[in-house]
Amino acid sequence: MAHVTIIGTGNMGQAIAAVAGRGGHTVQLLGRTDAATQVDGEIVVLAVPYPAVAEVLAERGDSLAGKVVVDITNPLNFETFDSLTVPSDSSATAEIAAALPRSRVVKAFNTTFAGTLAAGTVGALTTTVLIAGDDAEAKASLTDVITSGGLNVIDAGALVRARELEALGFLQIGLAASEKISWTGGFGAVA
Amino acid sequence: MAHVTIIGTGNMGQAIAAVAGRGGHTVQLLGRTDAATQVDGEIVVLAVPYPAVAEVLAERGDSLAGKVVVDITNPLNFETFDSLTVPSDSSATAEIAAALPRSRVVKAFNTTFAGTLAAGTVGALTTTVLIAGDDAEAKASLTDVITSGGLNVIDAGALVRARELEALGFLQIGLAASEKISWTGGFGAVA
Repeated sequence: MAHVTIIGTGNMGQAIAAVAGRGGHTVQLLGRTDAATQVDGEIVVLAVPYPAVAEVLAERGDSLAGKVVVDITNPLNFETFDSLTVPSDSSATAEIAAALPRSRVVKAFNTTFAGTLAAGTVGALTTTVLIAGDDAEAKASLTDVITSGGLNVIDAGALVRARELEALGFLQIGLAASEKISWTGGFGAVA
Repeated sequence: MAHVTIIGTGNMGQAIAAVAGRGGHTVQLLGRTDAATQVDGEIVVLAVPYPAVAEVLAERGDSLAGKVVVDITNPLNFETFDSLTVPSDSSATAEIAAALPRSRVVKAFNTTFAGTLAAGTVGALTTTVLIAGDDAEAKASLTDVITSGGLNVIDAGALVRARELEALGFLQIGLAASEKISWTGGFGAVA
């Protein structure tokens, strides 16, 4: 069993906490401004919007050394829904990994809406969480948390693939925001 | 009814021809080297690998003026499966549109494997073709061909969204090439 800290109590943080809880893991759910409380999970999910990540890292970066840090962000321009806010040859995950050289950073959950994590399904399909990262052991630990919570995982590859996962997340959010799909739908993976 | 020319007789060209045929549209299926035959469809699908597009445009670019030109390519490095071969802030579609200023270029079919076009389904889901382009009328014409052939269409937005569609195509091909999904699976859209 893992002990998972989730920083951020919004709909994604709550949904990820529920997945971990369903799998029998213990969860520490922290508000993003709750800087006085120590992060004690060996897996730490940054469940805050991308613009808030820098502040979390500034406050807690040292305490994340040695831990698996999970980036779930979609670094969109939420004014226009027309672009990402990271350089086109980079990703939010790459920037976070660069800021946390002593952590093992994994991308996950950015292509699954909170509703599909909570329900465990996208339409008739089991919800599949796409992950990417350079540390196989870190990905295996996170995969265990997710699959024990009843969801599927596909390992999309190295951390550099976070760029494509963020493109997929961007596309999916844009489709939901323009009502072409619902916030309980999206792209389901068929093996 | 539309008259659709498909340049390229590989598995994607054949599958797209079958979709158009199912919808009652007429199809001219041309080999990519069949430069002597005139392109007579008002919708022209470039069903050739991205590295072959430049030669097709050099031979036929003038005859594509005024037509709806459909780019289906995934501009991958097929040696490494680790990167796209177009600049990270551009797309194959943007490059083709720049080369064909008198045509109306639409991205489509790059996120649907040939097997899912032929079957009409991805798992239990009806196959959804994602399209992007700047000309609403061109997208409507292509949408009619696809939906009359029994598939769903989601309009992902302007031509600039081709970049995200290519990221999705890249991701999906990489997952199939590494046997994490099958070539009859992939990302199905749940509304």
